Amino acid sequence: MGQDIDPFRAITISKRAHELKEEGRSILHMEFGQPSTPAPKAAIARSHEVLDTDPMGYWESQPLKARICQHYKDMYGVDLTPGRLAITNGASPALVLALATAFSPGDRIAFARPGYVAYRNTVRALNFEGVEIACGEDTRYQLSAAALDALDPAPQGVIIASPANPTGTIIPASELAAIADVAKAKGIRIISDEIYHGLSFGPEIHSMLEYAPDAFIVNSFSKYFSMAPWRLGWLVSPPDMARRTGAYIGNLFLTAPSLSQHAGLAAMDAREELDGHVEVYRRNRELMLEALPKLGLEKIAPPDGAFYVYADVSRYTDDSLAFCLKLLEETGVATAPGVDFDPVDGKHFMRFSFALSTPQIEEAIDRLVPWFSKL
Amino acid sequence: MGQDIDPFRAITISKRAHELKEEGRSILHMEFGQPSTPAPKAAIARSHEVLDTDPMGYWESQPLKARICQHYKDMYGVDLTPGRLAITNGASPALVLALATAFSPGDRIAFARPGYVAYRNTVRALNFEGVEIACGEDTRYQLSAAALDALDPAPQGVIIASPANPTGTIIPASELAAIADVAKAKGIRIISDEIYHGLSFGPEIHSMLEYAPDAFIVNSFSKYFSMAPWRLGWLVSPPDMARRTGAYIGNLFLTAPSLSQHAGLAAMDAREELDGHVEVYRRNRELMLEALPKLGLEKIAPPDGAFYVYADVSRYTDDSLAFCLKLLEETGVATAPGVDFDPVDGKHFMRFSFALSTPQIEEAIDRLVPWFSKL
Repeated sequence: MGQDIDPFRAITISKRAHELKEEGRSILHMEFGQPSTPAPKAAIARSHEVLDTDPMGYWESQPLKARICQHYKDMYGVDLTPGRLAITNGASPALVLALATAFSPGDRIAFARPGYVAYRNTVRALNFEGVEIACGEDTRYQLSAAALDALDPAPQGVIIASPANPTGTIIPASELAAIADVAKAKGIRIISDEIYHGLSFGPEIHSMLEYAPDAFIVNSFSKYFSMAPWRLGWLVSPPDMARRTGAYIGNLFLTAPSLSQHAGLAAMDAREELDGHVEVYRRNRELMLEALPKLGLEKIAPPDGAFYVYADVSRYTDDSLAFCLKLLEETGVATAPGVDFDPVDGKHFMRFSFALSTPQIEEAIDRLVPWFSKL
Repeated sequence: MGQDIDPFRAITISKRAHELKEEGRSILHMEFGQPSTPAPKAAIARSHEVLDTDPMGYWESQPLKARICQHYKDMYGVDLTPGRLAITNGASPALVLALATAFSPGDRIAFARPGYVAYRNTVRALNFEGVEIACGEDTRYQLSAAALDALDPAPQGVIIASPANPTGTIIPASELAAIADVAKAKGIRIISDEIYHGLSFGPEIHSMLEYAPDAFIVNSFSKYFSMAPWRLGWLVSPPDMARRTGAYIGNLFLTAPSLSQHAGLAAMDAREELDGHVEVYRRNRELMLEALPKLGLEKIAPPDGAFYVYADVSRYTDDSLAFCLKLLEETGVATAPGVDFDPVDGKHFMRFSFALSTPQIEEAIDRLVPWFSKL
């Protein structure tokens, strides 16, 4: 029998939201970290074309791999060879692949708390031991080199996420470098989840690959590229692990969808359209930050990037799931409870995703303000 | 560090085949178990429509789940509730999901040798212990109830495949029932890989679900439904495991591609078109069976279903990989070496996939006959 792991509570919220919608209620979906925008126009156009002309096949797109290598050169000044890339069905299996390839049962894998729920659960499902590092205001809710260095014994692996989910905080370059130094000194294998790259509202975003050339890098087309439903991602493997990763992906997953690989290649050159989405998120973020004091939510993680606000709601509740459900029932605004991201302190937090249209965010604020005022 | 696992040797063959093709050679691809036909017309049409009208989203298609339940009722007379279904990115992650959900590290999982390479490798990658049951002519290269019963100690799990890869052999209903009885008596959890269902050239195909209501069932749209590049499959979980499977899929994989789910639903009603493919395979199989004696290949596994011939080539070689490479270089016909399916006896076998057009099969035979005659 496998390990018991928790389901996503945000799914509980979302299912209830869809029920309410079917009852005729107006629902605003702020519970999932998913752009409400479709794939870039060029990706859609390319898909129509491929559907009519290409027999497709089990297929690992060499042009896509080459384009991703170019992306690393353009964005981070890093040279990458296509042989180190695996094209995956989104970021989730890329994480499974990195963990399964690099670690043995019982190995200790560190990550920040709060953090993306699947780190904790996937580590557990694959029979590794999760080491949660409590991160609060003092480190801007992010894992630090000092905290990693303080672990005794050192873990075999560490998962880094910048910008992070649920907080949106970005780790500065100097700290990434310091984390890389600690990892190198102690033989800790780094997995860097860079799925929110491209989504910053100020701070520069660096890849861990700039500081730790032997890190695993997880990324996907689901966030900046606005292609979540296409299930397309990638894993960069360290040179010494790339052959093993290739054997694992063939056996565990085979390939990513052909159509998505064609569409993803087209999407990588649609930066103008995609940067337009980022400008929408920037405006949405400003509106949220203006509104939060009116909700009595003064204590939030610094929303440097991604499209989240992670807010302390301890003045209102000790049960964030019940709180989010009540908010949904009474206003139609679906959000994610902190318990998904932090099994200890998450009862006092909630996450708002602002990856909606600006009118939707305005409507959400119009509903949130009076509801919170009455608490 | 994870377990060492073997890469697919058929991929070595395929890469070389593509190199030769780029050099201008005419290549016939019999190395992979993939239909050369595209998705059904209705699935393509539905995809065009969805691309233009549907915002998509992370999404688990309830209509598709309901349709698959109907399929179990229609095909096997089995009642299934949608809650037991997980929609996956093809059969590979469905197998990972079943294994990870049901077993603990060190658990012993039995399967037939020869068998699909990913059983051996995925079991190993997830840190279970594979128990290979050598299957030869006496059991038509299939796992039997007697062989399962003879294992001492009994394994925690068993993987059944009917029709099987690489052989195409089908387990008769009575034997499936006997395997279910042994499994029940000894507390062995069954995973039944039914990916080649719909592809029989005579014998009836039954689902293990008819005999073992608490079996895991793996299936996909890659074979009968001719949608391999769409990466769409499903897992049926036992009632007591469905909740756990749901938690695992959310964390390890999220969802299958939205577009594929829409297209898959349309494909399930395209049986007339799909049964036409089966008639092509039937004709191809006859042509292959007529030709094999001319190749000196008299000893083959009974090709009841799927689209494979697994042939004993021991009179020609002790190194099936080298043999398949030589065949490819000299004739342009790509095939799969037995070592992918059987680490012990596979050096003496090769697999031909006949999921091509009939003219391609005729051309392949025209090249194979003189080449084998000269050996």
